[in-house]
Amino acid sequence: MSNPFFKNNGPFKVLDLLSILNLSNVDIDMDLIITDIKDLSSSKTNEITFFHSKKYKEIAKNTKASFCLTTENLKNELPKNCKPIIVNNVLVSTSKVTAKFYPSSINDNFDETVKEIKDTEFKDKIKFGKNVLIGENVKFGNNCLIGHNTIIEKNVSIGNNCSIGSNCIVRNSLVKDNVKILDNCVIGKHGFGFFPDANKNLRYPHIGIVIIEDNCEIGCGSTIDRGSMSNTIIGKNTFLDNQIHVAHNVKIGENSIIAGQVGIAGSSIIGNNVKIGGQAGISGHLKIGNDVEIAGGSGVIKNISDNSKVMGYPAKNIRDFLKKNK
Amino acid sequence: MSNPFFKNNGPFKVLDLLSILNLSNVDIDMDLIITDIKDLSSSKTNEITFFHSKKYKEIAKNTKASFCLTTENLKNELPKNCKPIIVNNVLVSTSKVTAKFYPSSINDNFDETVKEIKDTEFKDKIKFGKNVLIGENVKFGNNCLIGHNTIIEKNVSIGNNCSIGSNCIVRNSLVKDNVKILDNCVIGKHGFGFFPDANKNLRYPHIGIVIIEDNCEIGCGSTIDRGSMSNTIIGKNTFLDNQIHVAHNVKIGENSIIAGQVGIAGSSIIGNNVKIGGQAGISGHLKIGNDVEIAGGSGVIKNISDNSKVMGYPAKNIRDFLKKNK
Amino acid sequence: MSNPFFKNNGPFKVLDLLSILNLSNVDIDMDLIITDIKDLSSSKTNEITFFHSKKYKEIAKNTKASFCLTTENLKNELPKNCKPIIVNNVLVSTSKVTAKFYPSSINDNFDETVKEIKDTEFKDKIKFGKNVLIGENVKFGNNCLIGHNTIIEKNVSIGNNCSIGSNCIVRNSLVKDNVKILDNCVIGKHGFGFFPDANKNLRYPHIGIVIIEDNCEIGCGSTIDRGSMSNTIIGKNTFLDNQIHVAHNVKIGENSIIAGQVGIAGSSIIGNNVKIGGQAGISGHLKIGNDVEIAGGSGVIKNISDNSKVMGYPAKNIRDFLKKNK
Repeated sequence: MSNPFFKNNGPFKVLDLLSILNLSNVDIDMDLIITDIKDLSSSKTNEITFFHSKKYKEIAKNTKASFCLTTENLKNELPKNCKPIIVNNVLVSTSKVTAKFYPSSINDNFDETVKEIKDTEFKDKIKFGKNVLIGENVKFGNNCLIGHNTIIEKNVSIGNNCSIGSNCIVRNSLVKDNVKILDNCVIGKHGFGFFPDANKNLRYPHIGIVIIEDNCEIGCGSTIDRGSMSNTIIGKNTFLDNQIHVAHNVKIGENSIIAGQVGIAGSSIIGNNVKIGGQAGISGHLKIGNDVEIAGGSGVIKNISDNSKVMGYPAKNIRDFLKKNK
Repeated sequence: MSNPFFKNNGPFKVLDLLSILNLSNVDIDMDLIITDIKDLSSSKTNEITFFHSKKYKEIAKNTKASFCLTTENLKNELPKNCKPIIVNNVLVSTSKVTAKFYPSSINDNFDETVKEIKDTEFKDKIKFGKNVLIGENVKFGNNCLIGHNTIIEKNVSIGNNCSIGSNCIVRNSLVKDNVKILDNCVIGKHGFGFFPDANKNLRYPHIGIVIIEDNCEIGCGSTIDRGSMSNTIIGKNTFLDNQIHVAHNVKIGENSIIAGQVGIAGSSIIGNNVKIGGQAGISGHLKIGNDVEIAGGSGVIKNISDNSKVMGYPAKNIRDFLKKNK
Repeated sequence: MSNPFFKNNGPFKVLDLLSILNLSNVDIDMDLIITDIKDLSSSKTNEITFFHSKKYKEIAKNTKASFCLTTENLKNELPKNCKPIIVNNVLVSTSKVTAKFYPSSINDNFDETVKEIKDTEFKDKIKFGKNVLIGENVKFGNNCLIGHNTIIEKNVSIGNNCSIGSNCIVRNSLVKDNVKILDNCVIGKHGFGFFPDANKNLRYPHIGIVIIEDNCEIGCGSTIDRGSMSNTIIGKNTFLDNQIHVAHNVKIGENSIIAGQVGIAGSSIIGNNVKIGGQAGISGHLKIGNDVEIAGGSGVIKNISDNSKVMGYPAKNIRDFLKKNK
């Protein structure tokens, strides 16, 4: 995964990374250089990756990474080019190493880099309201509007003919053409991701971004969190109503229609032409097919295949549900 | 329906309207003048209306409109004074014609007409916070308060003794006396209404407004969308808790109590003295009677008669539900 | 209960209080002085309390209060030191008397006392964004951040190393150390508490505060209401996701994890190490034990004992629920 927005603080020596993991006695030259951290399939020579579950065995076998955070049980699946680094908890260790490379991806404190838009290059290019703030590394296409009190924080690219409402906050996001973001939205903040710890939960980095494709509309008061290791994506011509929450790493397809107060938990993938009624909830890590209809108020807790119509909690075939619940 | 807020860009010639519908060969004098678009019952001579379903046959027979968008099947129900204009999709055509008359009712881009309140006639009349913005065609009664960063956009009338919180956005709304709107609300934006289209959904106009009657309270972070062809109404002395979503064309009666995170879908009508528990959802186009109690978390998918107490999803008689779900 | 934030407008004479209750012919010296109103267990000599239900009989017997709002049926349970004042509706009368002592606890109009932070003592102590406003009686520890457009209204104490996002509104709250409050939250406003009345609902006072303990995180767009007679509390190291609503008087324990769009109704008590999935709802006045897991989308309507895993609406044992709902 290429990262357009987060600055890589590396490279680091093996020594640097092992020290934050409190490891020693590892049979690797401590002076070797590690340039980045990526997942198993996208990492390359001189990069480090992670491998925490047998599920990914086939991908692990072909990784190009030079180093891999993994366990004693899994290490033998790795190819010769990839030196294992054995840790107790792969995900926690991955989080620590990612944080070392991308320290700015952990905390979402307010953006101190912002300036008033009238003091930026955009003052004559776009139409804007009162008290609009613009951070570093922001781009705009032509013919855009930004409402009052809206803050376009750092690392945002907005296409042509976009209309952003008032009181919005956007960061770490790629917004394509003809997109409308209505009032009071918060887009691109880190997701609800951390390792629970009895005294102080450990937040893990969110180096993904939010991508909103052409012709989308995002309703008032919605929140769309950016991804942790991948991106959160809203597909072309998909419309979201008010007060919707889209969690980190979610991918929604094209031409979908999502009614008010729907919540989609982390890492779920929604197909094209999907209709979701108001207040429905989708659990995390699910796959919802194309042309699916989910009735309002439903709670989806397993995958849904193409062309299904579901209802209820747990959501099932709508005819079965209605027959049983007359 | 009279329209206090949206400017009618007409009149137009028949020719003008037919051209946006890509129609020709219509047996009507192209130079005739059409002054407005309204529904079947309220339209008058020289106005155009629409008739898309047999359900409205009896009303259609008595329309005073001079023109009517309709289908080959329905046209014979119209009286002699009303010339049919045959279209493939009555609602889409109605939307296009309404947009021609009321172009400002389609997009809810931020209001560029606003001024800082200290530069308006209200600076000595009401008590206001920092950074308050006021649009065109705004009125206030006596003894009102407006919080910090709040934007009263164009086309708003607020009565006496009202208190609007901070970070609110209000437009196209008629707020009566003694109303409280708490922080972070968005009131009067267009609803979630459009004709789905595979490449670019077609938004339809919202020429209705939001009416909030005397003594109401609207909780923090709530959204109330204005109506499309009718109004969204919150009845006298009805209290809404935080994070509630009221969709377009909804009408809520008097003395009702609606707890946090409730969602009411488009065009539903709620009676007087109704109590709705937290997170309940009401589907669209329903009629909920007077003195109804809906338990928190319920999902209402059919009409509810007066004096009922319901619970569950789908919501049913509360005693039956609890007996079955011990 | 000690009250750090609301100014006590007393003392008052017995005469003053009886007159707002429209009472006369009460056998008490009208010139006696009443200094405060508290609950049965914490009130002392010269203070007034209230006693409205047999449930509190044992506590009533030992009250130190000199006066008590109660009913004819209950008055004989009171000790000799405590003179009963008989009223028709104890809670309404209590509300009126509380309002007399604490008039500023009823309405949450915008805070007119705020100043721009650059005009306060904090301008060099904390890092802040544009357009930050600070009310009276606000304290900050070291090393805090406050985002753009955020309003710290009156009566707020914030500890060390806290990060408050942009567009937030906080009042009447005690925030401890290392707390993060993300964008668009509203914290410390009065709850949804009033006595319904056919013409004009009567709001009751909220003299409680919000307490957020060390290491907590509150997600974007969340609302946490302050308590009425007690406090609303978020325990140490508890994390809340986006768009959560916590109603008045709720107490959440330590190390709990609450996912997006959850709603917790008034006065419920949640234990330690509790996990609540997205969109779940907890009814009011419930007790949820320690180490409980509540599945996303569940509706909890009765108490849950320690170590339980529940799901469904109404929520029940998760294995039973899943077996029954295959």
